[in-house]
Amino acid sequence: MRQHNYSAGELRQFSERAFKALGLVPNDACLLADSLVQADLWGHQSHGIMRTFWYGARILSGAMDVGSTPTTIVDGGAIAVIDGNNGIGQVITHNAMHQAITRAKKHGIGAVAVRNSGHFGTAMYFTRLAAIEGCIGFLSTNASPAMAPWGGRKKLLGTNPWSIAAPAGDYPPMILDIATTAVARGKLYMAKQRGDSIPFGWAIDEKGNQTNDPIAGIAGTILPMAGHKGYAIAAMIDVLSGVLSGSRFADGVTGPYMREGRSGAGHLAIALDISAFRPLEEFCHDMAQLIGKIKNTPRTPEAEEIFYPGELEARAEQHHLKIGVSIPQDTVAELNASAQELGIGGLT
Amino acid sequence: MRQHNYSAGELRQFSERAFKALGLVPNDACLLADSLVQADLWGHQSHGIMRTFWYGARILSGAMDVGSTPTTIVDGGAIAVIDGNNGIGQVITHNAMHQAITRAKKHGIGAVAVRNSGHFGTAMYFTRLAAIEGCIGFLSTNASPAMAPWGGRKKLLGTNPWSIAAPAGDYPPMILDIATTAVARGKLYMAKQRGDSIPFGWAIDEKGNQTNDPIAGIAGTILPMAGHKGYAIAAMIDVLSGVLSGSRFADGVTGPYMREGRSGAGHLAIALDISAFRPLEEFCHDMAQLIGKIKNTPRTPEAEEIFYPGELEARAEQHHLKIGVSIPQDTVAELNASAQELGIGGLT
Repeated sequence: MRQHNYSAGELRQFSERAFKALGLVPNDACLLADSLVQADLWGHQSHGIMRTFWYGARILSGAMDVGSTPTTIVDGGAIAVIDGNNGIGQVITHNAMHQAITRAKKHGIGAVAVRNSGHFGTAMYFTRLAAIEGCIGFLSTNASPAMAPWGGRKKLLGTNPWSIAAPAGDYPPMILDIATTAVARGKLYMAKQRGDSIPFGWAIDEKGNQTNDPIAGIAGTILPMAGHKGYAIAAMIDVLSGVLSGSRFADGVTGPYMREGRSGAGHLAIALDISAFRPLEEFCHDMAQLIGKIKNTPRTPEAEEIFYPGELEARAEQHHLKIGVSIPQDTVAELNASAQELGIGGLT
Repeated sequence: MRQHNYSAGELRQFSERAFKALGLVPNDACLLADSLVQADLWGHQSHGIMRTFWYGARILSGAMDVGSTPTTIVDGGAIAVIDGNNGIGQVITHNAMHQAITRAKKHGIGAVAVRNSGHFGTAMYFTRLAAIEGCIGFLSTNASPAMAPWGGRKKLLGTNPWSIAAPAGDYPPMILDIATTAVARGKLYMAKQRGDSIPFGWAIDEKGNQTNDPIAGIAGTILPMAGHKGYAIAAMIDVLSGVLSGSRFADGVTGPYMREGRSGAGHLAIALDISAFRPLEEFCHDMAQLIGKIKNTPRTPEAEEIFYPGELEARAEQHHLKIGVSIPQDTVAELNASAQELGIGGLT
């Protein structure tokens, strides 16, 4: 497949242009574009600029209300509840994480529950903000149905991603950012395209039987990571994100791939101000020790290097800032077709 | 194997007697005994009364200091840091969770980091306390080295269990309580005893190669659950529990199976007061809806019932309260031999 390299700045400007044309105020357009391009920089292209017009379609249908602003429902010192009023998930979540950090700086810990938000893209985009501010950041969200409860064969719970980030002194932050499914659904589509079978443990068919056939798996449902443990995590993330905030939960949430329908996604953002617990330098010193121990562990025959959580993304970012982000030619064509419809300049 | 049924009361009295003889003050002996017997009631016998004298050995060696009391290092409104002073993990953790709940009732959320504690047994014993008080409870701990970082072949990180519990109205609380390893080490020993092979994905041998031989796996190291995801969770739990609290971390922690050596385990307890976010009745109403959806999901051919997280334990407890807990004859013999050494009455 032909590829073309773009600088982060070029991608950001293009996506920002699109979101402004779609009616976002400049600050919101800038934030949303930056969050998508940051995913590209980290090597997560599935969550990158290619999603610009997925959000666009939901904005045009009115499913996402770009004119709304979040409302604070509860302002309770260390905690808050925000109603996103069906606005832009990234904008609402940025606001929530910022508030959690501010409250943590005052109370040692801060938590913000968010209802009626939307898909926020990449969780670590927001938890990283907490780490930069000397906090441990936690963020979770529920999502549209992607998997069955353990023992079930009908989708009920979302991939329900969650992230935790912590500063690490001279190292880039240590960041966990995972979904609770065994694999991304995209991997089944890729196997189908290639005519490959899939490993058992990825999916079950419509009748609930384990399958190694990607077509049967797509018709059925993805399995949770780590079996019943991943199911239990997904259920609990739904409680934290959807039930605690008073948002939708389980099969009540609409995903970003649907053109129509309020999302109803809920989130929970928590920040812990490290310096309230112990001096930040001591914490960062111990983080460097931990990272050193991880990286110096004797390796398996296949492993060329051991990475700490978040290190691969930090390294990809450095790489892509130097050489640019390589976007497949057909993605560029799709983006430019949508840009033309909007009457804005494309990627050149 | 011959079994004998004991009531929870008989088991509790026996274990309490033992801990008093080992020098614990009555309240601490009562709490520690209750936490062990509760694990038996939930069907987690590996964490039950059979562990009485594992703790006993560490008390006798001086590794656990039953005369120490926890010190509050930081008292910061919504947060606190406690030094366990190498006392009894269960006692220290009970104190920490209680403080987290009290602080949550005042600030909406409360967090207590604990350093220099010890093995606390079953995490859900403590998070359940938060759920009973109308809070969502979170608890994590680090633990002695049990697995390698992803790509490594030498143990560095613990099983690092964590738990989240939430009230569910008329239903018993929804509770997640998991370790981050693919399986408990005990399953490898069981396979070895039976001469069975183990599935690939459970363990690697000393050279770091995947193995289906339990003996090679025991010599090597257990793998994390869900591959690199479980590794990343384990690392982050160590940050939350060990690094944030200023306790030991990574291979610095000593496990409960060792007779000697300060544990150095650290924990993090967090409580969120639900009624600060939304009316508790509304929350519980939605929890009942979520549980109803989970339980009514169409099932796979093998599944007779779908359980929500924590339901199996609640059901086991009801069952064992009625018919008693069945303890294998050889466990009774071992417990009674130790009881005789201590000069206390055994299980009859």
